[in-house]
Amino acid sequence: MLFIFLAVMTFLSENVSAQQNNQLVRLARLQIDSVQLENYKVALREEIETSLRVEPGALTLYAVSEKRNPTHITILEIYADSNAYKSHIQTPHFIKYKTATKEMVKSLELVETVPIVPGVKVKG
Amino acid sequence: MLFIFLAVMTFLSENVSAQQNNQLVRLARLQIDSVQLENYKVALREEIETSLRVEPGALTLYAVSEKRNPTHITILEIYADSNAYKSHIQTPHFIKYKTATKEMVKSLELVETVPIVPGVKVKG
Repeated sequence: MLFIFLAVMTFLSENVSAQQNNQLVRLARLQIDSVQLENYKVALREEIETSLRVEPGALTLYAVSEKRNPTHITILEIYADSNAYKSHIQTPHFIKYKTATKEMVKSLELVETVPIVPGVKVKG
Repeated sequence: MLFIFLAVMTFLSENVSAQQNNQLVRLARLQIDSVQLENYKVALREEIETSLRVEPGALTLYAVSEKRNPTHITILEIYADSNAYKSHIQTPHFIKYKTATKEMVKSLELVETVPIVPGVKVKG
């Protein structure tokens, strides 16, 4: 009985970490034209809300603006795997965002990362 | 009946956004001594796991290492409010981490931010 329990737990835990190992986790660092910052944030908000609602593989898109440099935006992006990311960039809402914000984004840096504690959530 | 329902919904939604407005959201950007990187990650992992387990007000500490520059670490930190943050830096596990990693951290930048879509979670 204990053996079965341990086997199941091991399977579940390996399964969870295998899923986490496939995750694509990165930081997008952007600088936005200050004149267009409010419009940019409206477009980004819509894109994030839609992605998280309709794409099961878009696990988070957590975007922040720096208080001292509001035009500096960082987005922590987590996708279930590379296929989820490939689907994401083909969605109508992503293409709409990308097109609408093309002239607003002064620079974009995509930084591939490795999470130090995989599987961390946001509580509350 | 509809009026009561709407009043309750408005109260709940204002309550949620008031809670989110008090949140302290920031990015910590660190550079770690390459020789001590593995030790640093062990210490950080322990500090994050303990904080998220025992501190209700530590909502997330999502730490990533850049693939191309593994010594460059970014942590997205979300606290329920400024009191939760003040408590956090007085906990034994935080003080232990801070002391243990003092000589490992080459630079630390704390960037106060405003979330663009407050309340975003990590799904899955």
